[in-house]
Amino acid sequence: MKPVTLKQIAEILDISVTTVSKALKDYPDVSKKTKGLVRDLAQTLNYKPNEFAVNLRTKESKTIGLIIPEIVHHFFSSVIKGIINQAEKKGYLVIILQSNESYDLEKKQLKLLLNKRVDGILISIANGTADFNHLEEVLRDGKPLVMFDKIAKVVNCSKVIIDDRKAAYNATQHLIDTGCKRIAHFRGPLLPQNSIDRFLGYKKALLDNNIEYDSSLVYICECGDKSFEEGKLNAKKVLEDHSDVDGIFINTDMVAIGAITAFKDLGVKIPEDISIVGFSNWFMSSAITPTLTTINQPGYEMGKKAFKQLYKELKTLKKEKHIIPKIIELETNLVERNTTKPILKN
Amino acid sequence: MKPVTLKQIAEILDISVTTVSKALKDYPDVSKKTKGLVRDLAQTLNYKPNEFAVNLRTKESKTIGLIIPEIVHHFFSSVIKGIINQAEKKGYLVIILQSNESYDLEKKQLKLLLNKRVDGILISIANGTADFNHLEEVLRDGKPLVMFDKIAKVVNCSKVIIDDRKAAYNATQHLIDTGCKRIAHFRGPLLPQNSIDRFLGYKKALLDNNIEYDSSLVYICECGDKSFEEGKLNAKKVLEDHSDVDGIFINTDMVAIGAITAFKDLGVKIPEDISIVGFSNWFMSSAITPTLTTINQPGYEMGKKAFKQLYKELKTLKKEKHIIPKIIELETNLVERNTTKPILKN
Repeated sequence: MKPVTLKQIAEILDISVTTVSKALKDYPDVSKKTKGLVRDLAQTLNYKPNEFAVNLRTKESKTIGLIIPEIVHHFFSSVIKGIINQAEKKGYLVIILQSNESYDLEKKQLKLLLNKRVDGILISIANGTADFNHLEEVLRDGKPLVMFDKIAKVVNCSKVIIDDRKAAYNATQHLIDTGCKRIAHFRGPLLPQNSIDRFLGYKKALLDNNIEYDSSLVYICECGDKSFEEGKLNAKKVLEDHSDVDGIFINTDMVAIGAITAFKDLGVKIPEDISIVGFSNWFMSSAITPTLTTINQPGYEMGKKAFKQLYKELKTLKKEKHIIPKIIELETNLVERNTTKPILKN
Repeated sequence: MKPVTLKQIAEILDISVTTVSKALKDYPDVSKKTKGLVRDLAQTLNYKPNEFAVNLRTKESKTIGLIIPEIVHHFFSSVIKGIINQAEKKGYLVIILQSNESYDLEKKQLKLLLNKRVDGILISIANGTADFNHLEEVLRDGKPLVMFDKIAKVVNCSKVIIDDRKAAYNATQHLIDTGCKRIAHFRGPLLPQNSIDRFLGYKKALLDNNIEYDSSLVYICECGDKSFEEGKLNAKKVLEDHSDVDGIFINTDMVAIGAITAFKDLGVKIPEDISIVGFSNWFMSSAITPTLTTINQPGYEMGKKAFKQLYKELKTLKKEKHIIPKIIELETNLVERNTTKPILKN
């Protein structure tokens, strides 16, 4: 059955389309009797207001676009949940696209969303993204854009982030405080800011504690959907390359859990031989043996805050005011578990 | 900057809106010169075709709706990934809503999607859904509807499923084949079909092997975002209630991993004291200790097949033909790992 139109309702009742429209919107200049007739017929014929048309008039689609690098990832799915729950409260629908960590795909998807006339865009950029012109274009278009987690510093939009450098510093400091002297780092890819910042936090903690920085102790992970395997692989490599390593700060929990699995298979004792600190506090961190010491990264909260900021900017635009980009920084904390030793007493 | 319209382009060039529209669409009855002028100006002014308006005319939004019970769940996020990847290939965008396993929310969301005039709907129903009128309405509206994983048998639409009963039978049979005699079942909630079918498969395997069915050995899990905790809780309960249990077939891997964690804490040896078979083959199943024997449930494949079926139905509708609902059953298999003993030789 094709959807019934206002025109058809008007014809059946022999009144004007305007009257039908006004009746459905409860305008005071339509009689109660007419309103009753229109509503009853609309219900009988299963009339649905054409939301897309309404949107054209109000210039709003009440739809926002979300681009994330990877859906099957506990952190990002928590973020998605935060965004969707918050968006629904405000009457917005969310179109989700996955960039697969590819710059080309991300660029294409952004264009697609703009063509779809979404009201605003939330994005966590792909590891491969080094050029930001596609993001600048969103702003030139006058669309609100909020970045979260994996951001581009140079793009002048709002951002919801954590202090990756500080969190990584604390993670590395914890390894030092528990007696580790030769600390490796499994870092993320070279480009994304959070992976750079976590690396810099690691390096600074070493230097502040008079531990020499050795670049051969830094291993790169792509951190895509092969994270678990990469953790296993790097664990084997680090043992081959450096028999004296006694601590590792690992970019994400998933990679850390891969590393723990490999170390256990190889008979390495955790935390006695090698201590490990992860990053994200994925709930599996407390389920594995030994339980993983990690940095708690609030995914759901990040999604919620990102949508809230976008919503604020949409309201600002409606008032024809200028958007002032805001940096929202969420707190992280170290969760001590069993992959690290107790802190040494002085 | 507000988006430029066809009308504005027409005014600047002093030609009709129709000519501008035809020029952009490369109609043969517009001169090359005019086409060149229009295209150059459209590019300079950053013209974007109004997709929503186009959609109104073709009666297509090129957008589909997806309702799932829970996003932060490895199986469902794999399904989402399969759907999104496939949809993008065919030029469709996906609006994702999460029902939080609530019937009321699911009903509301379905209405929202219909009002948004999505072209079709993919759904995995909430545990709380027992009345299916909201789903029947989608079909009455003439919209293609494809259900996956958690389906309602009585709704006459296409479905992508696995044979849950057979898979559960095989899981239980494996416990029997490896010597278990007193087998408990941690089942899902009472309503959803897959949870019923898994329970029935468990029961049938017992009866076929002349093992008495004992309802006190069946424990219910809500299987929401507290799955891991539920697994731990039920593991403790089963030990208190039945000291003689030597095997458990568990509805999902997440619950199984919770149970394994609790059993390890309590000093129960797996698989010697209690053997466990899970369901889904979440990748963490091979990361925990001991690695989990489980049923492999193809999430990504399910998402892909569900979109493909919806796409076929959209094409059928375009040809003004009648949709014939199809049941697509995907294969599952048992993955033997270390939470079960080797199969007994006769």
